[in-house]
Amino acid sequence: MIKTGIIGAGRIGRVHIASIATRVPNAQVKTVADPFMDESTAEWAKSMGVACTTKDYREILNDPEISAVLICSSTDTHSQISIEAIRAGKHVFCEKPIDHDVEKIREVIAALEGTGLKYQVGFNRRFDHNYEALQKAVAAGKVGKPEVIKITSRDPEPPGIDYIKVSGGMFLDMTIHDFDMARFLAGCDAEEVYVQGANLVDPAIGEAGDVDTAIITMRMENGALAVIDNSRRAAYGYDQRAEVFGSEGMVESFNDKASTMTISNSCGVTQEKPMFFFLERYMDAYGKEIAAFVDAVVNDTDTPLGVMDGLKPVLMGLAARKSYEEHRPVKISEII
Amino acid sequence: MIKTGIIGAGRIGRVHIASIATRVPNAQVKTVADPFMDESTAEWAKSMGVACTTKDYREILNDPEISAVLICSSTDTHSQISIEAIRAGKHVFCEKPIDHDVEKIREVIAALEGTGLKYQVGFNRRFDHNYEALQKAVAAGKVGKPEVIKITSRDPEPPGIDYIKVSGGMFLDMTIHDFDMARFLAGCDAEEVYVQGANLVDPAIGEAGDVDTAIITMRMENGALAVIDNSRRAAYGYDQRAEVFGSEGMVESFNDKASTMTISNSCGVTQEKPMFFFLERYMDAYGKEIAAFVDAVVNDTDTPLGVMDGLKPVLMGLAARKSYEEHRPVKISEII
Amino acid sequence: MIKTGIIGAGRIGRVHIASIATRVPNAQVKTVADPFMDESTAEWAKSMGVACTTKDYREILNDPEISAVLICSSTDTHSQISIEAIRAGKHVFCEKPIDHDVEKIREVIAALEGTGLKYQVGFNRRFDHNYEALQKAVAAGKVGKPEVIKITSRDPEPPGIDYIKVSGGMFLDMTIHDFDMARFLAGCDAEEVYVQGANLVDPAIGEAGDVDTAIITMRMENGALAVIDNSRRAAYGYDQRAEVFGSEGMVESFNDKASTMTISNSCGVTQEKPMFFFLERYMDAYGKEIAAFVDAVVNDTDTPLGVMDGLKPVLMGLAARKSYEEHRPVKISEII
Amino acid sequence: MIKTGIIGAGRIGRVHIASIATRVPNAQVKTVADPFMDESTAEWAKSMGVACTTKDYREILNDPEISAVLICSSTDTHSQISIEAIRAGKHVFCEKPIDHDVEKIREVIAALEGTGLKYQVGFNRRFDHNYEALQKAVAAGKVGKPEVIKITSRDPEPPGIDYIKVSGGMFLDMTIHDFDMARFLAGCDAEEVYVQGANLVDPAIGEAGDVDTAIITMRMENGALAVIDNSRRAAYGYDQRAEVFGSEGMVESFNDKASTMTISNSCGVTQEKPMFFFLERYMDAYGKEIAAFVDAVVNDTDTPLGVMDGLKPVLMGLAARKSYEEHRPVKISEII
Repeated sequence: MIKTGIIGAGRIGRVHIASIATRVPNAQVKTVADPFMDESTAEWAKSMGVACTTKDYREILNDPEISAVLICSSTDTHSQISIEAIRAGKHVFCEKPIDHDVEKIREVIAALEGTGLKYQVGFNRRFDHNYEALQKAVAAGKVGKPEVIKITSRDPEPPGIDYIKVSGGMFLDMTIHDFDMARFLAGCDAEEVYVQGANLVDPAIGEAGDVDTAIITMRMENGALAVIDNSRRAAYGYDQRAEVFGSEGMVESFNDKASTMTISNSCGVTQEKPMFFFLERYMDAYGKEIAAFVDAVVNDTDTPLGVMDGLKPVLMGLAARKSYEEHRPVKISEII
Repeated sequence: MIKTGIIGAGRIGRVHIASIATRVPNAQVKTVADPFMDESTAEWAKSMGVACTTKDYREILNDPEISAVLICSSTDTHSQISIEAIRAGKHVFCEKPIDHDVEKIREVIAALEGTGLKYQVGFNRRFDHNYEALQKAVAAGKVGKPEVIKITSRDPEPPGIDYIKVSGGMFLDMTIHDFDMARFLAGCDAEEVYVQGANLVDPAIGEAGDVDTAIITMRMENGALAVIDNSRRAAYGYDQRAEVFGSEGMVESFNDKASTMTISNSCGVTQEKPMFFFLERYMDAYGKEIAAFVDAVVNDTDTPLGVMDGLKPVLMGLAARKSYEEHRPVKISEII
Repeated sequence: MIKTGIIGAGRIGRVHIASIATRVPNAQVKTVADPFMDESTAEWAKSMGVACTTKDYREILNDPEISAVLICSSTDTHSQISIEAIRAGKHVFCEKPIDHDVEKIREVIAALEGTGLKYQVGFNRRFDHNYEALQKAVAAGKVGKPEVIKITSRDPEPPGIDYIKVSGGMFLDMTIHDFDMARFLAGCDAEEVYVQGANLVDPAIGEAGDVDTAIITMRMENGALAVIDNSRRAAYGYDQRAEVFGSEGMVESFNDKASTMTISNSCGVTQEKPMFFFLERYMDAYGKEIAAFVDAVVNDTDTPLGVMDGLKPVLMGLAARKSYEEHRPVKISEII
Repeated sequence: MIKTGIIGAGRIGRVHIASIATRVPNAQVKTVADPFMDESTAEWAKSMGVACTTKDYREILNDPEISAVLICSSTDTHSQISIEAIRAGKHVFCEKPIDHDVEKIREVIAALEGTGLKYQVGFNRRFDHNYEALQKAVAAGKVGKPEVIKITSRDPEPPGIDYIKVSGGMFLDMTIHDFDMARFLAGCDAEEVYVQGANLVDPAIGEAGDVDTAIITMRMENGALAVIDNSRRAAYGYDQRAEVFGSEGMVESFNDKASTMTISNSCGVTQEKPMFFFLERYMDAYGKEIAAFVDAVVNDTDTPLGVMDGLKPVLMGLAARKSYEEHRPVKISEII
């Protein structure tokens, strides 16, 4: 049994608090820190069995009882707090991305070196039942040698334009999950990226310098080709599918639905839409990723995704941006 | 290559003419007979390569060039024309049912005896790709020993009340196909039938003494249980499904659709309705049943469904009617 | 927030303890009682936040802090403990069935009368996302007037023969869930039952006087027909499907699977089997049924299934048994 | 009713002969020409109602009774025979591609000019029930403005290496159908192409200078992005799917199967593989394309795909090859 501290009590911080309270038997949340901590948040935290709340995350870092921290604060603080937590001797679970700046991620890597501390990045989709099943099938050779990897990832609706402006752009904010998925399914890194991007959903996104629709092709180090298609808006909801095609067959995963109910009437045969958005689709995966992190801490094993798994998708995202801007294929090795 | 005559140029007679013209290379239609033969029908027949048209089916029976006849006239003439055709030395394909009266079917059986002529009954669904695949899987032992057979059969809309009145009732008119299917899938005869029938679709059907909705359970001779559910009206179209459950698994078949198109939008994920009705769903099966009949004639082999396969479903239909009227399970052996 | 006591720490008792610990925020388990309480069970209970463990369920009934009890003991104790708990002024959640003996259920009904206490029976499937979606669609008129209700319910494997012998027979042990489902989906009671039963899975079950395969047809009070097909063994796992067909369409629900993964190779296109058994398929439903019970207690509203919902499926099960034995349709009103 | 001549009695020529014989009521095949015409082919042609057979296609061009010709000879003769046929005043249906050389296609275009003759190119997939349904849905605005078009096209197995060598390369031989499909679904031309190609299936294909696996992304003139993924070998058979995603939803089409049979057993829930290859999958489409051509001739209307529809996919294929060779996005306008 370990004690944890949660830094950031926003949407995702609360998801992790609830997960630990209800689904992670070998961990407790001792303290939650948030600069905007208020009474109602504190009350909710108590109801979840959290002992302390504070506005200052340093209380967590200074607490010798707490062995692991979950960094759920705003993206621009991830790398800095990671380093402070590592220096305080804490194991770290950090929400994605560690940073948009490769240099800062490298500083976290340097800080970790030799400490023996665990570090895990929050690519929750690796813990989704569908993607997990695909990856296991591929790793078990069920499709032979992987040749083509296809990932479809569409949000139900774009975030507000203010968020878009600070998001680092679609490739670092949204596609970053798909870049991680490509690595997860292929079992290797990408070598080269080419982007066809467009601004089709909302002109304001284009005015903010970003794209909202893209097809991203990649060559993976094992020779497989990969393609991601993204849109910031799908009328039918959150579209999250993948396919791995190989020398001996293909595995596919499809969207989860709230039920299997199918209605047949004079309009056709209709099933439910996909689950609304990431909190619905991946709630179970969020619980499993934290349980896996806690297990790694408790049993002193490797986390399923280390700090390098945090770095790689950022490199891919930066290469994608460069490809879009320079209208040419870009090697990952061009990004330093 | 054989020459055939078609008796009856109604809807199903025309289907068979077109099938022979386009899909049965070893047969031709020489003559079509229909008491209501008119110019437009005759013209259409010519366009299909039919040499002669007539109002009198005896012209066909008396034509020594014609070796096989297809009886597509009204149900009440099937057994009589069957006997005449057999006596004229013709092979016979007869639309279902041979008759509603068991005695008359037995007369056809007696007439056939010792002649060596081929006789086939028009249970077209045995030639449908889906049911054929199910039957083959079951016969090949893919589900182990069959234990439960389920057949769903619903029409898109009821026939006119005038037709209902002369139809012999739902069990002999509509369920008869499903009784044949139960025998086909189980690979044996039924022993006992019980009916839950109701008049839910149209009160006029009830006033005509018939049901329009029913669940029919059976015990088959091999010990398997079977259940048919029927309705004369399905808002989403022609519903034709089956399932065979056995000691080692289950096979199912589903409705055919005009295309695989699926549309996802804010209303859900919608596929097409089933194909509208029997002419759409079973057009291919109609062609295959005639090709099988012609092959049996040409190669002097058994037809895939003989005259006994015409008798048995009628017995089941009469037992079903008796069960409904007497509100109790009825053994097939009670029907003489 | 209420305090509850759990009577019976077997498989289902533990499911409810875990549900309350992790998913029911407005309830706690104060005490667990089990005549076979041992150290390991007690330890597990502590880990789930349970304060006390005991061998004597009367400690729960005598505890004024506990307002509600969950009866998860062996079936033959359900009605007796229900009555004791009611007399002790406790709200009761009782696992199904209340009793195999109608008279004893009537005693529970009599004990409840005038107390204002809540009573809920454990028909967990009503809380399953699929059945819930079907029922809501039907109740909202999405299929028009219900005409045919079909329920398929097959276990992956039969229980041990010792269990079979004390189970009350398949109709009271297994079909009872489907009887409840027929009432839930139809929105009314059954009027008449007819059973085609067979012993096809294991001769030992037949020797014990029970069936293992059955097709049960019913006429519901609203005129709809219903059919349940049961088997104690399905090679492909737990098969739990339903269909409601009505004047304006049909709703269906299908089996849940652990993932949407589909593999295409030279053998075909293969999806996962259904989830293994009831604990996998209905885990979420178990949580929701307890949450609903607790809500009814806390908010002083009706429970979603009262004591009469416990009685009715037992009447249906006894009618089914009578139909099987007497080989005829049996009216529910024949069962006193 | 028109008389046609077929030039080329290979696989596809025979498909068209059979289609006209059985499915195109307003056309007849008068003559079939093939340099390798032998007795067995001639006999087969007679059985299909073809009056004459010859080794010299000029007999067809010189026959004043024949108003339309179908060019089904080897690819390198398509443009030359097209021009001769046009000069002989015949309407032309020409198998794809008209030529690998843009200049020669332009000569066909020039020859056609001002003649009023009909010209149709054999992109059979436009007549497939699935793609036709997609295109109609898109054209009817069912998905709003198209934003992303995805086409998956995989052959069950690669052709022989001798064929590969003269095929013009995968982009002109195989992807050309998908280029046409992208235009058909988008309702406009492509602007730019980028290719990720690889040699993963068979090293001999790479040695012959060709690829066997590719992901091709395009920007269409209406702003939509498109992606095609190709493989010369799929272990599970012919994989032919498409998806159009737009501002208001998505339409998808899936693989056709020989039946809907689904088997559930201890290995999972298995459906049939896709239909084996193009002759199985597109047999119906082949019939419909010829019927459409004949209708255009008979009714003097436009053919559904004219000579420009033959040119455009060749331009796309050449751009794709250039992109692959130069490792950069290539504008269609770069291809002269």
